[in-house]
Amino acid sequence: MTSSPPISSPVERCLTALDTTEVPLVGVRRAGEVLADVGPRRYLHSGPPIELDEVPGPMRGALIGALLFEDEAADPAAAAAILDAGEIELVPCHHAGAVGAMAGIVTPSMPGVAAQAAGQTVYSPLNEGLGQALRFGSYDDATLDRLRWIRDVAAPLLDAAIRADEELELCGLVAEGLRRGDECHNRNVALSAMIIARLAPAIARAAPSSEEAAALFEFAAGNRHFALPFTIAAAKGVTIAAHGVAGSPIVTAMAGNGRRFGIRVSGTGDRWFLAPAPLGEPRLFEGFTAADATPTMGDSMITETAGWGAFALTAAPAITSFIGGTAELSAQLVEEMQSICAGSSRRMLIPGDDFRGTPLGIDVHRVRDAGVSPVINNGMAHREPGRGQVGAGITRLPIAPFVEASEVLTAARS
Amino acid sequence: MTSSPPISSPVERCLTALDTTEVPLVGVRRAGEVLADVGPRRYLHSGPPIELDEVPGPMRGALIGALLFEDEAADPAAAAAILDAGEIELVPCHHAGAVGAMAGIVTPSMPGVAAQAAGQTVYSPLNEGLGQALRFGSYDDATLDRLRWIRDVAAPLLDAAIRADEELELCGLVAEGLRRGDECHNRNVALSAMIIARLAPAIARAAPSSEEAAALFEFAAGNRHFALPFTIAAAKGVTIAAHGVAGSPIVTAMAGNGRRFGIRVSGTGDRWFLAPAPLGEPRLFEGFTAADATPTMGDSMITETAGWGAFALTAAPAITSFIGGTAELSAQLVEEMQSICAGSSRRMLIPGDDFRGTPLGIDVHRVRDAGVSPVINNGMAHREPGRGQVGAGITRLPIAPFVEASEVLTAARS
Repeated sequence: MTSSPPISSPVERCLTALDTTEVPLVGVRRAGEVLADVGPRRYLHSGPPIELDEVPGPMRGALIGALLFEDEAADPAAAAAILDAGEIELVPCHHAGAVGAMAGIVTPSMPGVAAQAAGQTVYSPLNEGLGQALRFGSYDDATLDRLRWIRDVAAPLLDAAIRADEELELCGLVAEGLRRGDECHNRNVALSAMIIARLAPAIARAAPSSEEAAALFEFAAGNRHFALPFTIAAAKGVTIAAHGVAGSPIVTAMAGNGRRFGIRVSGTGDRWFLAPAPLGEPRLFEGFTAADATPTMGDSMITETAGWGAFALTAAPAITSFIGGTAELSAQLVEEMQSICAGSSRRMLIPGDDFRGTPLGIDVHRVRDAGVSPVINNGMAHREPGRGQVGAGITRLPIAPFVEASEVLTAARS
Repeated sequence: MTSSPPISSPVERCLTALDTTEVPLVGVRRAGEVLADVGPRRYLHSGPPIELDEVPGPMRGALIGALLFEDEAADPAAAAAILDAGEIELVPCHHAGAVGAMAGIVTPSMPGVAAQAAGQTVYSPLNEGLGQALRFGSYDDATLDRLRWIRDVAAPLLDAAIRADEELELCGLVAEGLRRGDECHNRNVALSAMIIARLAPAIARAAPSSEEAAALFEFAAGNRHFALPFTIAAAKGVTIAAHGVAGSPIVTAMAGNGRRFGIRVSGTGDRWFLAPAPLGEPRLFEGFTAADATPTMGDSMITETAGWGAFALTAAPAITSFIGGTAELSAQLVEEMQSICAGSSRRMLIPGDDFRGTPLGIDVHRVRDAGVSPVINNGMAHREPGRGQVGAGITRLPIAPFVEASEVLTAARS
């Protein structure tokens, strides 16, 4: 007689993938070097598929900036003409192993965090910092100059430093971020400092000059979201590992393109289940109204898909000063998210809740049965290109895509 | 008629001093440059006054190391002979505007954090990092070599970087540490990374070579208590400002020398109220027993005196994995500390408790009336010189000194 290992259920297989997949950091690379789907005039964007003629304002701004950055156009008018002529191809980041915050535009020479998960490369563009930024649709000279500096100076230096440090594993970083009061989606300040402190020796050694090292340190110290591409690459890594399990109702992607919100589910292959992008109830910065905001846009809610962000809200109590709410509301929200998840994490722990694991594995059947859709912590972009961020908050996602996916899976079973 | 400002009570004056005093960082300086009370063979130590012939093992080891470090002795035997002949003078750190962790030995060329508070200099020696260290009584070559490197390389570089950054105020750093899950006594990991990330640009620019910058970054990244001298200097600064208010029952120093534990109180001048040093119930590292531990030694409980450390335990839930306990016990402990404090802070806030202020201003009358003495988070040193740390935990302080101080103040009133 031979003994065979117990057969895991599809849900268990997904939970194991989400909770045990390691995502070792490879370096900081240009997208064109590591992603087969990115090429000249073939750019990535955030969210589910979108046509060029329907992209929202910030995404159009980012595309204009991208064409300038790639020297495909000499000025914004020329770039706009290329877009209006339909002369670029758009591919969702999620189809390419990538994730991008906000507009999520990724071009061949755009530098980003590259890591490995489940035998493939995952990638996320480096965060450009506060103020005007391509991800919010800016394409002015300051935005492009900074992006070029990131490409030419910061990225090679970070890459060298990361390659000198053989132990950087992104899920371990996220777990430590949770111990330091970040939820690793909308609050990344402690993890940002931790990554820089960790890489600082190698950055100092690799820098061609002390001034270049100093400039990189200044850039990182001034950017509370420096860690974001590291945490969303981690999340993309574990969700890739959980994707494609036949019959599994576990969500493996949630994303918005400013027009539509969509999800993908482990057991339903590459199909997107869609709904109009929600606006949520963001806490708007002074001087803005809800009419200024672009509906949910960006891939960074992959963090909630992977079990942190809003799902670990109680790990980051200081975030309520930014997005609103109280400790009690945060705890209720995490409890609610637990009710629609198939399990809880054994590595992403909330110290303030006696190291309880975060809710893990959004189950579309549970969402449908409970009538409770997931929430995310997110930033909101202005409707117009280049106007930047207008607010941040907690957004309740539309439930329809989850219900539809549940119905599709249920129908397939019968 | 002239209107005069309302007259504050002694307690109110102390609370205001504790809660509003700013402690701007000056730099990293040798003690002999900034402290009038430190000189050749005139060294500082932690805790209340102690005679040379009664110092506990780790303090004697640190003094041997100190004499070697200052080139007063050629070898440990010669250093021991100097001690046995009574040829050095000991002064408490607290009498000199200083605070030192564990043995707290401060010599003229020892580099430390220098800051300003209430018109005077406050100082704390740089933390040497993990492993063998002078503060635990080590005096082997590795300990002394590292201390010389700190003096000759790390300290000047940190000093230059701090002088290039004009905005570093120590209480602001502590407040941010609390937002990042440190309680800034026994957990300093997030604040350590934050300080390094903040100073990194200036360190890179000031370093004579990239290797020196890299070595400093490595030293800091490998030391979870790098921030400790910054936080205890902050605490010393605010407690100096609160000291010397006639009639005030607010505690302005608590410290141990391994033999005796003592406190000073704002309204009772320079007098120390003493009790035998407690052992507490430390969580011992593997391989050690309570018999290995030195009773409470060190000045770092100035953090609790200033209103953080164990008084902000709920800000640092991850610390329970190190010192034991649960979130509920932590909350009870903070509540209990609130009951013996005269107020609560408006700048040291606990995000996980909806930004409630930490208990502020230990009132000896309240301690006496409630029969509740303060607790501290602390590290425990081995009884023998140079054996290092044996554990950490929460220690309940002896109540007798608080009761005695209360009685003295009460008697003075009547």
